[in-house]
Amino acid sequence: MKIIIVGASGTMGKYLAGKLEKDHEIVRVGSNSGDIRADITSPESIENMYEQVGSFDALICTAGPTYVGPWKTMTHREFRKGIEGKLFGQINLVLIGQHYINPKGSFTLITGALTYEPVLNFSNASAANGAVEGFVRAAAIELENGVRINAVSPTVIEASPQYFPFFPGDIPVTMEHLEYGFRKSVFGAGTGQVIKVD
Amino acid sequence: MKIIIVGASGTMGKYLAGKLEKDHEIVRVGSNSGDIRADITSPESIENMYEQVGSFDALICTAGPTYVGPWKTMTHREFRKGIEGKLFGQINLVLIGQHYINPKGSFTLITGALTYEPVLNFSNASAANGAVEGFVRAAAIELENGVRINAVSPTVIEASPQYFPFFPGDIPVTMEHLEYGFRKSVFGAGTGQVIKVD
Repeated sequence: MKIIIVGASGTMGKYLAGKLEKDHEIVRVGSNSGDIRADITSPESIENMYEQVGSFDALICTAGPTYVGPWKTMTHREFRKGIEGKLFGQINLVLIGQHYINPKGSFTLITGALTYEPVLNFSNASAANGAVEGFVRAAAIELENGVRINAVSPTVIEASPQYFPFFPGDIPVTMEHLEYGFRKSVFGAGTGQVIKVD
Repeated sequence: MKIIIVGASGTMGKYLAGKLEKDHEIVRVGSNSGDIRADITSPESIENMYEQVGSFDALICTAGPTYVGPWKTMTHREFRKGIEGKLFGQINLVLIGQHYINPKGSFTLITGALTYEPVLNFSNASAANGAVEGFVRAAAIELENGVRINAVSPTVIEASPQYFPFFPGDIPVTMEHLEYGFRKSVFGAGTGQVIKVD
């Protein structure tokens, strides 16, 4: 299977690429490194990425930057800019990618527990996650030729201890469990699902 | 109670204004009519609206235009433009309005069943709804001075039969039940809730 991993230089993407490359052809995409460089906040860059990749069987996106900061001083400009990557970037990967993906292919996007379990300073991510999850359910009934779409939703991951203080009491997800969530989406038959990873 | 209704010239807003004005001071806001005119896709227009209203106790938003159309020909530009009102407009009403609302006041936004029950041609609304619902849960833990925030989520409403063909099998919500949903948000004590109206 030919699998594109967008965010391949990040903590999750690097881990997944290392695991999946044992059995699959992996195309690593990053903003500043990888087999192909792409900026998911730019539709032109996404289009260019797909042109370079050619046909593929699965796309995994683990890239979802959002604005993190105090609520009271957050302006509408910061809020808007903050969801460019995780919301518009991921949605555009699908809207554009539907014209390149192989029949029976799959898209797997990243959301997170913040959709339902907000923490202070992360309202931007909660909104982006919610949008992506609503989109995934809607896109699942629109995509044709057996193409599937799911989201993987972890809480804070064990490999990112710098985020632990923001998530008091959350038991970090092991990288192995995270990998299983992505495997369920890519190699399973489900579509329109938000796969929660604990 | 002084209640702003944004979308007061629409089907829902007009109905709610008529019911609530019996016991409350209603400020009707519309894009082309009402006590005050405002375009919620413009943060400057929202700021101007709040300046004109002065302090208030509750804001209800029933305005949530989104893009409706075939998936295959929907571009990223249409998708982005389509969520300006329901997503950014509603979120900006809160981000800006938090600096004007009275202590113990409330914001009530509109989402809809499409968050979880997609129908063809409405993926844009599913994403906007999901974002607003995630935002509502996150904003609820950020707002201070006892200010609350909820969303009301109806399926297709009985007063909009032009939408019935898009929602096969959905039992339309009566206007009375819709009103109860908004009353629960404005006059109840809950916060961070998505109030489903059947």
